[in-house]
Amino acid sequence: MFWTKVFIPTLKETPKEADSLSHQLLLRAGFVRMLMAGAYTYLPLGLRVLEKIQAIIRQEMNACGASELLLPALHPLDLWQKTGRDKDLGEVMLRLKDRRGRNLVLGPTHEEIITDLVKNNISSYRQLPLILYQIQTKFRDEIRPRFGLIRACEFIMKDAYSFDKDEAGLDKNYSLIFEAYKKIFLRCGLKTLITEADSGIMGGKVSHEFMAPAALGEDVVCVCPECLQASAAGSDLCPKCNSKADKVNTIEVGHIFKLGLKYSQALGANFSDIKGNLSPIVMGCYGIGVSRLISAVIEQNNDKDGIIFPKEIAPFEVIVLPLDVTNNEIMKEALDMYNQLNAEGFSTLIDDRDERAGVKFKDADLIGVPLSIVIGKKNIEEKKVELRVRKTKETFILSKGEALKSVVDLV
Amino acid sequence: MFWTKVFIPTLKETPKEADSLSHQLLLRAGFVRMLMAGAYTYLPLGLRVLEKIQAIIRQEMNACGASELLLPALHPLDLWQKTGRDKDLGEVMLRLKDRRGRNLVLGPTHEEIITDLVKNNISSYRQLPLILYQIQTKFRDEIRPRFGLIRACEFIMKDAYSFDKDEAGLDKNYSLIFEAYKKIFLRCGLKTLITEADSGIMGGKVSHEFMAPAALGEDVVCVCPECLQASAAGSDLCPKCNSKADKVNTIEVGHIFKLGLKYSQALGANFSDIKGNLSPIVMGCYGIGVSRLISAVIEQNNDKDGIIFPKEIAPFEVIVLPLDVTNNEIMKEALDMYNQLNAEGFSTLIDDRDERAGVKFKDADLIGVPLSIVIGKKNIEEKKVELRVRKTKETFILSKGEALKSVVDLV
Repeated sequence: MFWTKVFIPTLKETPKEADSLSHQLLLRAGFVRMLMAGAYTYLPLGLRVLEKIQAIIRQEMNACGASELLLPALHPLDLWQKTGRDKDLGEVMLRLKDRRGRNLVLGPTHEEIITDLVKNNISSYRQLPLILYQIQTKFRDEIRPRFGLIRACEFIMKDAYSFDKDEAGLDKNYSLIFEAYKKIFLRCGLKTLITEADSGIMGGKVSHEFMAPAALGEDVVCVCPECLQASAAGSDLCPKCNSKADKVNTIEVGHIFKLGLKYSQALGANFSDIKGNLSPIVMGCYGIGVSRLISAVIEQNNDKDGIIFPKEIAPFEVIVLPLDVTNNEIMKEALDMYNQLNAEGFSTLIDDRDERAGVKFKDADLIGVPLSIVIGKKNIEEKKVELRVRKTKETFILSKGEALKSVVDLV
Repeated sequence: MFWTKVFIPTLKETPKEADSLSHQLLLRAGFVRMLMAGAYTYLPLGLRVLEKIQAIIRQEMNACGASELLLPALHPLDLWQKTGRDKDLGEVMLRLKDRRGRNLVLGPTHEEIITDLVKNNISSYRQLPLILYQIQTKFRDEIRPRFGLIRACEFIMKDAYSFDKDEAGLDKNYSLIFEAYKKIFLRCGLKTLITEADSGIMGGKVSHEFMAPAALGEDVVCVCPECLQASAAGSDLCPKCNSKADKVNTIEVGHIFKLGLKYSQALGANFSDIKGNLSPIVMGCYGIGVSRLISAVIEQNNDKDGIIFPKEIAPFEVIVLPLDVTNNEIMKEALDMYNQLNAEGFSTLIDDRDERAGVKFKDADLIGVPLSIVIGKKNIEEKKVELRVRKTKETFILSKGEALKSVVDLV
């Protein structure tokens, strides 16, 4: 794509509202803009990253045999009253009335809604097991929205739900999704620590959190320097080997729960077994903070010049930098390279702005595209281009063929 | 995918709530479920159709040089007060307060929000022209939600906005998107009539509507039987040739507007020209009712047995029907065919339920997959399969190789 058409409003100055490194970089690199505290616009580059993360999540969830659906954001309050969670969530839940006086809430999560759906559409053991998921906007009236996408009032979550006949079935699905989560975070280039966690208002007995280490993180995880066991804060001694554990600040990016019967009993989601006896469906739920994940990745992958995107979720894989767009020869070579990269299937950006070389280098570093191909006057005279690696700052003077081959090898 | 894992709760009976043919079919075929009046869950098959429509829209919008972003659903009321549209929209706009007492609205559309974004990020003629779009959930407190996805309170829209230096630029972008809309509806298999329309509360002088003929449609379009000119209702005589026009019921699926300066002036979105003079940006806006489009397509493409999906937006291109899943030989052949179709890149469903042949044929017709490949005992003894064409009900007894070749030819 062409820089001049994509809308990438990079900033030289750091906006006042930026209260964390990742937020600062998201704003400066033109990935997001704040509409009001807690509500963000995803600009084209931010949306591209979001979509790449979502594609990874979909692949790994589908590989678990899960099916995607999409539940409404507007819910009737009465479903929440049946589980009592309208009280548990309290002021976090945004409430409104429509013109007919219906009491509505904006979904902060969807356990009640999906359980009601399954109650009305599943009746037999023959329809189980089942895993359903969605990628959907959630709304929470946070008392203190901050750190940009990390604690927002409107944010994107992937929430999955498993439905089983019995505990053994739940255990199996829980393990399956547990492993899928490890793959998802690994593919996103995110380091995580996994801890057993408290289930809180979600209910159920067993839950695990996936925590991304980051200086600004508000959740503390203890990590044993001896055996590398991670555990929830409070346990200062390693529960496995009793050594003194280190405290690490983290951001919660995933949380999975064995819910058991809490929702199916409260909402009457039963199935009949082979003998015709009715039992409540055994449920699990599995969340990933999708929009927050972008910030967590940036917290872990940056340097003084900007973001260093892992290649699987970078907004583009390669950027072509013609250093002088008024020079026909340079533009011809740059467009040629751009077309070849696209033809090879690489997502490619070309910086076609009439800007100085310094501006282009700075912006390419800032937005974190893994590879740049620089087309300048001196090199093309020798039929060469320059390949730059964002992460290591290495540069290579190569023929066009060698440069293409290097992109194939590196991406 | 396997039917038993996808969650396709087809219904034999028509639910009471179904107040139109398309809604009835969407419910019976397991594409959507109502959570409450005006709010629907997209089940996996419904979501697949939605995503195919969205992919077509993205391709055609990107081909116009448009960039995708994503604006928030929660808006501060004060931006709407600046244009006075909080009053224009009145009770249609869902309003709420957060815990800090901020006055918020749920976005019924996004002109104010995108104009504010552009105002804060565009300052020079060098950044224009620009086309931005999003596919986003909108909220409208309809006085009478009905016909399922056709008039919902929570629905999905594609809204695009063009930003230009002058009227000539607007005219160019307007024509570009006008042509893109024709392609989008054609690819979705939807017949539309195009009329000049009233701009209403959107503002601006010129607007065109894309209207899909359907018996339940609430908007009447006049079509001249002589010259085929379509025009807005009221004009009973054809404005082109003066013949008496026929009245056709239609559903509005697209609406495009030359907004001009209404929003840029009200919100102060200016650009500086080459001499440094400030002028308001000239805007256009371009909507498609994405979720409603599914219903419109179904209204136009069905028979007594169910939906007949156009191939580009069908939830699956092919369905494999093993008529007896307890027969190992049948299942082996069916899975073999299923794997080959997937390997060839066709989106394929296999009905692996332990159900009678009649149930499988009925459901395959109901959900509207264009082609079925039937694996039954008699045919496989002769190394044959049966190919069924949903639209024409034609059947062909073919070798497996011939069946695969026919799928390639027909899809």
